[in-house]
Amino acid sequence: MSRRLRPLPPGSTLGILGGGQLGRFLTLEARSMGYRVRVLDCDPHAPCAQAAHAHARVPFDDIRAVLAWAKDCAAVTYEFENVPARTVLALEKAGVIVRPSSLPLSVSQDRLVEKEFALRRGVPVAPFAPVRSSEELESAAKSVGFPALLKTVRGGYDGKNQARVSTLAQAREARGRLGKHPLIWEKKIDFLKEFSIVIARDAAGRTAAYPASENTHEGGILVSSAAPARIPPRARTRAENAARTLAAALDLVGVLCAEFFLEKGGSILLNELAPRPHNSGHYTLDACRTSQFGQQLRALCGLPLGPVSMRGAAAMLNILGEGKGNLLEGEEEALSLPGVRLHLYGKKEARSGRKMGHLTALASTPGKALSLARRARKLLRWA
Amino acid sequence: MSRRLRPLPPGSTLGILGGGQLGRFLTLEARSMGYRVRVLDCDPHAPCAQAAHAHARVPFDDIRAVLAWAKDCAAVTYEFENVPARTVLALEKAGVIVRPSSLPLSVSQDRLVEKEFALRRGVPVAPFAPVRSSEELESAAKSVGFPALLKTVRGGYDGKNQARVSTLAQAREARGRLGKHPLIWEKKIDFLKEFSIVIARDAAGRTAAYPASENTHEGGILVSSAAPARIPPRARTRAENAARTLAAALDLVGVLCAEFFLEKGGSILLNELAPRPHNSGHYTLDACRTSQFGQQLRALCGLPLGPVSMRGAAAMLNILGEGKGNLLEGEEEALSLPGVRLHLYGKKEARSGRKMGHLTALASTPGKALSLARRARKLLRWA
Repeated sequence: MSRRLRPLPPGSTLGILGGGQLGRFLTLEARSMGYRVRVLDCDPHAPCAQAAHAHARVPFDDIRAVLAWAKDCAAVTYEFENVPARTVLALEKAGVIVRPSSLPLSVSQDRLVEKEFALRRGVPVAPFAPVRSSEELESAAKSVGFPALLKTVRGGYDGKNQARVSTLAQAREARGRLGKHPLIWEKKIDFLKEFSIVIARDAAGRTAAYPASENTHEGGILVSSAAPARIPPRARTRAENAARTLAAALDLVGVLCAEFFLEKGGSILLNELAPRPHNSGHYTLDACRTSQFGQQLRALCGLPLGPVSMRGAAAMLNILGEGKGNLLEGEEEALSLPGVRLHLYGKKEARSGRKMGHLTALASTPGKALSLARRARKLLRWA
Repeated sequence: MSRRLRPLPPGSTLGILGGGQLGRFLTLEARSMGYRVRVLDCDPHAPCAQAAHAHARVPFDDIRAVLAWAKDCAAVTYEFENVPARTVLALEKAGVIVRPSSLPLSVSQDRLVEKEFALRRGVPVAPFAPVRSSEELESAAKSVGFPALLKTVRGGYDGKNQARVSTLAQAREARGRLGKHPLIWEKKIDFLKEFSIVIARDAAGRTAAYPASENTHEGGILVSSAAPARIPPRARTRAENAARTLAAALDLVGVLCAEFFLEKGGSILLNELAPRPHNSGHYTLDACRTSQFGQQLRALCGLPLGPVSMRGAAAMLNILGEGKGNLLEGEEEALSLPGVRLHLYGKKEARSGRKMGHLTALASTPGKALSLARRARKLLRWA
């Protein structure tokens, strides 16, 4: 069993399925501890590939090629939740150590399975219903009601493949637009706040949860995170316990992000899970003793987790492309503000809405950190 | 003039002369801010080359090839103090931005020039005399006296090319062994402590000094550093002022390390300078808001420096090869100690005395950090 394995010594080769910025941060972390990194991603310009030792341009669903690639890896992880679960299953069957395993991946890939999984472990979620036919659409409209979000059960991220609906006509129209894939009807929650918990769990089952971060989104894309989240202590404790319960139930070895809604009255609802480091945990890179990528590396290599303590507060703002130009200007001014750090992912084209980088501001409170981050963000512009 | 230049935008290509672990840390820092890195080093296994975007295996003294290489670099720095100053001069003449410039490099490459440079700026050094002949050897023995260190004026590092002498016979023998190169006779100081100041200076002349670290050496190689150094406040202030004075006098844009002796009575003497990040500043990677490599990157790119504040204390121990095996074991146990971080440089052969990595321990005081680091170090072994 993989959890009995000895830690992988530095110099070992780690494989990452997916070559985006999450894999890139893991790669930089791995390099600083002396590991070698092989990345698998079709994109010749994958941000992670630039930093890795080797880059295989192989489709995730070419299982034979992925198996051949994994032969040179002491352990494999994924950085993208849409890697096909059956590819990961095939790796596991071939005896490759994959951390996290195929279980959290397949659970988080299916919104219905994910919600049922959470409910069975006593973690509350928003009312929902499956929509696989026009009959189920009508019935969901009655049983769950409006306003609602219609989402494809599989394959969405960053607000893609979903629609907000307030009437049955809108819902029918949205279903047509979403292409008749199996859908989920989710009650739109009138939440006070969105927040997330990033938790790490090692091969021995020990966990370490980071301070919750409060998040804002625009068009389904994360705009800002601030930690520690300004939420009632009871909500925080419940969310932490829920994240710990789910990580254990998924037998997760790695990092899990659980996103929650805080409702009026202080109750919480799980929104979704990602079995990997998360954009809302990027603040840990600058604010915590061990970042979420440091934990991911340690878990992957069978090493114990690091301390997660932070001092003060931090805020993270994404730097999205605007389709205006590929050159970011104003770094000098932004970095002149004390406590501001900038991370850019090495992507060439700053297409509109593309995550090009992020900035972190450190301050004594989350409110001050957010103001500082916003001041810094305003100084940056695309040219 | 280079200091009037606009900051280099992320995506720009930076060149590093030298491919050791110092260049590697700079490369990782550069990557995390979206810069591209080209490294120049003959060694096919240079630790920095693995992490860089491109690796040119060109000798430092092949000026034509270095000039051709630099054509694709927006700015160049060096990470090794024995890069020939005339190579850097040739780059400067060709209009390449080199930060730091050839001045601090050529000053620090010549122990006599370095000491005279310091003395002229009011920074005290140990008594010394040049030894270019047997007559000068006799005269240095009289004027400076014993015990002394005989060192080659150029080309030494990590305790290489030097000898400790207590008698004239030993001095003559050492001169024969050191190969009749120009030597310097330095009075061996009966110091209380060795410590260093790492200071960064940006293109606008602003400086930021890190807390001093107290250092121990064995066989000329740094063994441990702990910060903040336990030295009298007046000694610290004097050393900081000296480092600032020298950085300004050298018109240094980048990072400078100044090593000092603390004498009984609290006076300080400059030992030597390195116009680059320094092993004794590695603790800043884990303990400070901006690491010495973060500052080096910012200075190189014409960006303002970051904050250097640290909380608590830190200790760094080098992990040297022992010629016993190339596999480091015990990471799991070492990393289980809270506050311990491990950095390995990706070198394959753990030859005896080779710097393979380092560990940092964070604690509330330098003494506790040192004990913790030593406990962690004992858990590591080569196999």
